[in-house]
Amino acid sequence: MTLEQITQHILSKKSYLCVGLDTEFSKIPVHLQQQPNAVVAFNKAIIDATKDYCVAYKINTAFYEAMGAKGWQIMEETLHHIPSTHFKIADAKRGDIGNTSAQYAKAFFETIPFDAITVAPYMGEDSIKPFLEYKNKFTIVLGLTSNKGANDFEMLKTGEKYLYENIIETIAGWGSQENLMFVVGATQANQIASIRNIIPNNFLLVPGVGFQGGSLKEVSAAGLNSHVGLLVNASRAIIYAGEKENFAEDASEIAKQYQVEMAGYL
Amino acid sequence: MTLEQITQHILSKKSYLCVGLDTEFSKIPVHLQQQPNAVVAFNKAIIDATKDYCVAYKINTAFYEAMGAKGWQIMEETLHHIPSTHFKIADAKRGDIGNTSAQYAKAFFETIPFDAITVAPYMGEDSIKPFLEYKNKFTIVLGLTSNKGANDFEMLKTGEKYLYENIIETIAGWGSQENLMFVVGATQANQIASIRNIIPNNFLLVPGVGFQGGSLKEVSAAGLNSHVGLLVNASRAIIYAGEKENFAEDASEIAKQYQVEMAGYL
Repeated sequence: MTLEQITQHILSKKSYLCVGLDTEFSKIPVHLQQQPNAVVAFNKAIIDATKDYCVAYKINTAFYEAMGAKGWQIMEETLHHIPSTHFKIADAKRGDIGNTSAQYAKAFFETIPFDAITVAPYMGEDSIKPFLEYKNKFTIVLGLTSNKGANDFEMLKTGEKYLYENIIETIAGWGSQENLMFVVGATQANQIASIRNIIPNNFLLVPGVGFQGGSLKEVSAAGLNSHVGLLVNASRAIIYAGEKENFAEDASEIAKQYQVEMAGYL
Repeated sequence: MTLEQITQHILSKKSYLCVGLDTEFSKIPVHLQQQPNAVVAFNKAIIDATKDYCVAYKINTAFYEAMGAKGWQIMEETLHHIPSTHFKIADAKRGDIGNTSAQYAKAFFETIPFDAITVAPYMGEDSIKPFLEYKNKFTIVLGLTSNKGANDFEMLKTGEKYLYENIIETIAGWGSQENLMFVVGATQANQIASIRNIIPNNFLLVPGVGFQGGSLKEVSAAGLNSHVGLLVNASRAIIYAGEKENFAEDASEIAKQYQVEMAGYL
């Protein structure tokens, strides 16, 4: 998928919502747990219920790996149910020496054809380059994350700059807005504006709205740019909005609320 | 597995060798490629040929994920063939917000019962703690890696210290030698001595010997401590030592050479 296609989809939908499929068997409605392939059934219902209000889906690989090989089949089946119009993100936070990162790129860009993968920056250039070599695929590098632990290392001063600023600025030079995005946590809305100064053109993937407490209004004010430049993710707030038989309608309602709010900011 | 068991195994074998199973279908001997479940057959032959000379196996998850769900089955089958005496490492380089890291810990400590997993430090304490909560399991955090990209961020100065020194010192305080090890690349032998000053007691997992050019002699001189404290990994140098029908004997021969050299340093 190209940057142009992503932006067009956002403008036509009036939404920059990404729905995070962090699906745990124990948290899906009890009536679904009793049927075969329950997680796939749940994910399909959530996708059908939310696809009109979002432009992207983010599959958190951890929740599928916890189920072993079967989890990878579930991840594939889920991916194939997502409409081709929607941007498909593997939230995998991978990164290793060059020949190993090349295998991860193959795993998530070829074997399971996602449009994008999240990548950890610690190991530097040769750990990230293999992902960037794919055309019309996006590498989404961790910049400033939404968790408390972001204060431990990401916020260390390296010379004049914070480590996360240094990382974002350096890595931005290894790619372009056509193949590189950054993760910036919504719980760090006050830093989004300064990150926008470093990378005016790259898309930001912003988790942490909803369950983690980030404000969509503040994130949007600081993060939107001339070609939107923003994907805001909500996972638990949407997919676990309801616990009963009408869970998909509940999810749809919450996704719609996000979409309506986003339409106002575009 | 406990620290005591690892050390005892090393002393009885006179080896601190870890064999890395970074298996690619295209690189295994041609005669094996033609049989069903070729990667498992290759891994089993390598394990049988090397188990007398090593104390640990490291499975690089990227190479298995590149094969999709089938790759995860291959990873499980491979793991089950490793003798119970040997320390089993998932080289997965995971790390995410707390509730997600808990899922990764479940994936690699429960669903597929490894003894240890490699973890990326960037996201800080809540990304690492869920792994440390498992008793008799080891979290192996990236300290200073063996690749060229280590210079990009790991070697940045944060105040008086390099980032990797800061990370090792901080994270060492979150666990103990009973549940925490660090990855230190063999290509950085000159830094291993200074890392030993920061963490005199934790085991170091040292990749980069062999194909990547690190020196076993230098690594051993700088890294060994009173309870050994060292696992040195070789992957490609051992598993791809031979390309013909006697590939396993070739692998065995190289593993034996490492073991004999290590016996001299112990």
